[in-house]
Amino acid sequence: MMTSPLKNDRFLRALLRQPVDATPIWIMRQAGRYLPEYRETRARAGDFMTLCKTPELACEVTLQPLDRFSLDAAILFSDILTIPDAMGLGLYFSEGEGPRFKKVISRETDIHTLGTPDPSSDLRYVTDAVSLIRRELNGKVPLIGFTGSPWTLATYMVEGGSSKNFSLVKGLLFEQPKLMHALLHKLAIAVTDYLNAQIAAGAQAVMIFDTWGGILTSRDYIDFSLNYMQQIIEGITRTYQGQTIPVILFTKEGSEWLESQMATGCDALGLDWKLPIGTARKRVKDQVALQGNMDPCILYASPERIREEVAYILESYGPGNGHIFNLGHGVHPQINPEHVKVLVDAVHEMSTRYHQF
Amino acid sequence: MMTSPLKNDRFLRALLRQPVDATPIWIMRQAGRYLPEYRETRARAGDFMTLCKTPELACEVTLQPLDRFSLDAAILFSDILTIPDAMGLGLYFSEGEGPRFKKVISRETDIHTLGTPDPSSDLRYVTDAVSLIRRELNGKVPLIGFTGSPWTLATYMVEGGSSKNFSLVKGLLFEQPKLMHALLHKLAIAVTDYLNAQIAAGAQAVMIFDTWGGILTSRDYIDFSLNYMQQIIEGITRTYQGQTIPVILFTKEGSEWLESQMATGCDALGLDWKLPIGTARKRVKDQVALQGNMDPCILYASPERIREEVAYILESYGPGNGHIFNLGHGVHPQINPEHVKVLVDAVHEMSTRYHQF
Repeated sequence: MMTSPLKNDRFLRALLRQPVDATPIWIMRQAGRYLPEYRETRARAGDFMTLCKTPELACEVTLQPLDRFSLDAAILFSDILTIPDAMGLGLYFSEGEGPRFKKVISRETDIHTLGTPDPSSDLRYVTDAVSLIRRELNGKVPLIGFTGSPWTLATYMVEGGSSKNFSLVKGLLFEQPKLMHALLHKLAIAVTDYLNAQIAAGAQAVMIFDTWGGILTSRDYIDFSLNYMQQIIEGITRTYQGQTIPVILFTKEGSEWLESQMATGCDALGLDWKLPIGTARKRVKDQVALQGNMDPCILYASPERIREEVAYILESYGPGNGHIFNLGHGVHPQINPEHVKVLVDAVHEMSTRYHQF
Repeated sequence: MMTSPLKNDRFLRALLRQPVDATPIWIMRQAGRYLPEYRETRARAGDFMTLCKTPELACEVTLQPLDRFSLDAAILFSDILTIPDAMGLGLYFSEGEGPRFKKVISRETDIHTLGTPDPSSDLRYVTDAVSLIRRELNGKVPLIGFTGSPWTLATYMVEGGSSKNFSLVKGLLFEQPKLMHALLHKLAIAVTDYLNAQIAAGAQAVMIFDTWGGILTSRDYIDFSLNYMQQIIEGITRTYQGQTIPVILFTKEGSEWLESQMATGCDALGLDWKLPIGTARKRVKDQVALQGNMDPCILYASPERIREEVAYILESYGPGNGHIFNLGHGVHPQINPEHVKVLVDAVHEMSTRYHQF
């Protein structure tokens, strides 16, 4: 693939803990329902899965927030559950209910008969979207690829959707740990192939979203979630066409386990908003970059209050490299886009003084 | 009040880190929907609030699990939201939806016009239930009184019920922190009076449930939740009729903040299941007792698996005083009561070797 040179490499440099002129920022779910232009495209697509599966539409919504805000990265518009969908479980979204699967995994045969998707055919719509977005970005900012973690995929595959107690998937884990490992092993291979296909198509950094690792005990988190993320990190292309491909690992509600997370060999850890980012930085001893960690609810507040929180987080991280600003969770659909602009501009403006060396 | 001497004081001794013969156990929501006899009483009461507000019925369900299992404590059957109900907000429960309020707090005048309930009249049904339960227990085990934390009460009062994002209550916190403090200050006074009334009526230990402290950032947790719990701990009767009244503080999803929690002067901390209890014990340096911390989903598993987990948690805490066994959250309604019996018996049987000195 012929690609234009990158005009803004702050995000990639920060992931590798290299010096930057200002702290880079992108926002989880930056292409999403809070933007009227997204709602317009989504309405045109008809439903969410058509939006994901049509590369031109996925590209369109990926680029929308970059036209409004001076964000330092784009993230592929897709869903974390594309792999189980490609395995034949039938992903769909019902209004206000979140993701659901038509088929669920409940027995040993369900797991043994699951195929591993071939990204070049079964997930071609994703790699096509990645290539198209890279072309359209034309070097403006880097493009992030992503996936759900094996444990997170497994929770949805066994529960059939979101869950309050996760009793089905934990039941399987506690009663039939070998079977659960068989499922996770299969998913780790599929995720590795999938991320490698995204990288080959043009993703310049990748993020593993472990949305539900935080519901586990410490030992179960290591055994059933983190170990499989580590396998993926060891299995993916870390240098592509001479460029390092940084990996971000994010376990929501997982700040108890930062030390174990950094030992996977990832380049950066995503943080929710519970720990002060300065505390997290001390714990990881500057050995990985940190991405986060503003409470998304701050965006309901006034511009003054948003700027105050940005100042607090930048000061908490302190001077030096390795900080990528983000929210601790996705931006809510009710947020005023003007407030997102206040946030993005504040991070760039207020962070320069932490980068003067 | 004339009371019988306590026949089983393991729970109170463990809270004060005194030697015991075996690790005591009680279970959050031990009087609840997983018990057929509870469902029978609840059906007879008609609705949940009638069950809470009728001392004879509240007493009946409080005692039910003690007839089945050799638990080391009883806990008053009530709800964490009795105070806002007594303030006139109109608590009700709709099927499968959790608690709801008829009135919500949204403006400054709503907060300034809120009265502080008089426990001796407005919450008389609670203190009557406490007295009755003490009498019926006849010294079998101690009785725990409880409350929701001011922050947790405020979240329900502002949101009107449970919430996914807590955008309303966080909006108030971020935009109008003084107003939020005014509400929390009022609630802290009401909670202090309420716990003192429970203690005067016969509660032998009290627990503060901070169900939603874990949704906050570290600095907001200290300012808006923990500080008010500390005010309560400083304001309540700690010795009643010559007996120490231990205080347990439990912030769900709050294990990042154990050190700050123990500094409130509480006697014990409740733990969810995320940290190994041995890690938590090292962090609190044996200065407070610890209550927890089995994942409630383990009770879906086989008796063998339940016993294995009990062994793991007892070994993680290790020899010595100050452990009260419990789940990390309430027992689920779907759990087989026989599995709860396996748990309770396993804790007593397997823990004796950690108490031989």
